[in-house]
Amino acid sequence: MKKIADEIPGYTYGTAAVAKSPVSLEELESLRVSVGFTAEDEQFLRMAGEVLADQTKQIVEEWRGRIIAGIPHLARHSQTPEGDPIPFYLAQSNMRFEQWILDTCLRPYDQDWLDYQQEIALRHTRLKKNRTDGVRSTPQVPFRDIAAFIAVLNDSIRPYLASKSNTAEDVEGMHRAWRKSLQLQLALWARPYLDLAKSSSEW
Amino acid sequence: MKKIADEIPGYTYGTAAVAKSPVSLEELESLRVSVGFTAEDEQFLRMAGEVLADQTKQIVEEWRGRIIAGIPHLARHSQTPEGDPIPFYLAQSNMRFEQWILDTCLRPYDQDWLDYQQEIALRHTRLKKNRTDGVRSTPQVPFRDIAAFIAVLNDSIRPYLASKSNTAEDVEGMHRAWRKSLQLQLALWARPYLDLAKSSSEW
Repeated sequence: MKKIADEIPGYTYGTAAVAKSPVSLEELESLRVSVGFTAEDEQFLRMAGEVLADQTKQIVEEWRGRIIAGIPHLARHSQTPEGDPIPFYLAQSNMRFEQWILDTCLRPYDQDWLDYQQEIALRHTRLKKNRTDGVRSTPQVPFRDIAAFIAVLNDSIRPYLASKSNTAEDVEGMHRAWRKSLQLQLALWARPYLDLAKSSSEW
Repeated sequence: MKKIADEIPGYTYGTAAVAKSPVSLEELESLRVSVGFTAEDEQFLRMAGEVLADQTKQIVEEWRGRIIAGIPHLARHSQTPEGDPIPFYLAQSNMRFEQWILDTCLRPYDQDWLDYQQEIALRHTRLKKNRTDGVRSTPQVPFRDIAAFIAVLNDSIRPYLASKSNTAEDVEGMHRAWRKSLQLQLALWARPYLDLAKSSSEW
């Protein structure tokens, strides 16, 4: 499997440290149908993985360093409650963010992938945020901001998809497949938030 | 305001029948920032509204009649619990679906719009589904399927945006603004689902 580095702190994909997702493979399959995800999309994601593989650092730098850093209500989730930066938290989570780009494009969407989607989502909720890196920061990223930020991830990825010698049709195909995957992932990420909402009043 | 028909059954936008949203205008503003929504996007949505205005019937026919009708786990939400069609339910909700396209493009995103987003979402939950039209159908559309289906709404709108004499750049601009708006709306629609989850185990 393609990795952005030999060692990625806290990256536990496919290991025993990741619990089984409460979502079944059958539910995942029906989400794939809801999203309109096809074999062609899978091929376009593989193509996107090749195109993006040597650009993940710049992409995450744009997302985290340029966009999120400029939006206080998003930037705070990588800072201490007092608003101080936590450089190693950013560095480590940025590496996982980079790897997530590759996993989105190149991993088969199987049980391991499903389990890790749940893990990713949990790490944004009060149940697991900050624990992987042992930091003191906001307790939870609100689901609404994750849902909203998908639009930014979608828009900003396009120039990177278009930066190699692919045809306009291929770029649109890769972008379409990327967008479908993110919508599918967002649907999965909603799960622990909805579970958690039962015992919390936070949106 | 542009309407798809003089009378749209159950369409209560801007009336006293719509409760005030629990989301504040300040929260809406920070969601606009999270989504990266700009004045340029607003202009592109206006342009999209003009382009789509005479195509809303075909678009909703494609969504409902061609795509959703072919996906049993989505189609059931317009049917009786026994799986029988409810033609007037489809007809009435299709009219509102058509109008939603225009509202997405042409309405100012103000208090009335915010309130109606909450109303739209509630009408997909067990709190209000089926009531507007007085029908017997599934109690709730799962949030995950709404999140997933956004990808379909996004992809399938593009040919309609490209069907007039606009430049490729304008088509991309309209499409980008549309996608941002839908992500913003999805974030708002999550609200009543998360509120409801507190008293329910359904995802």
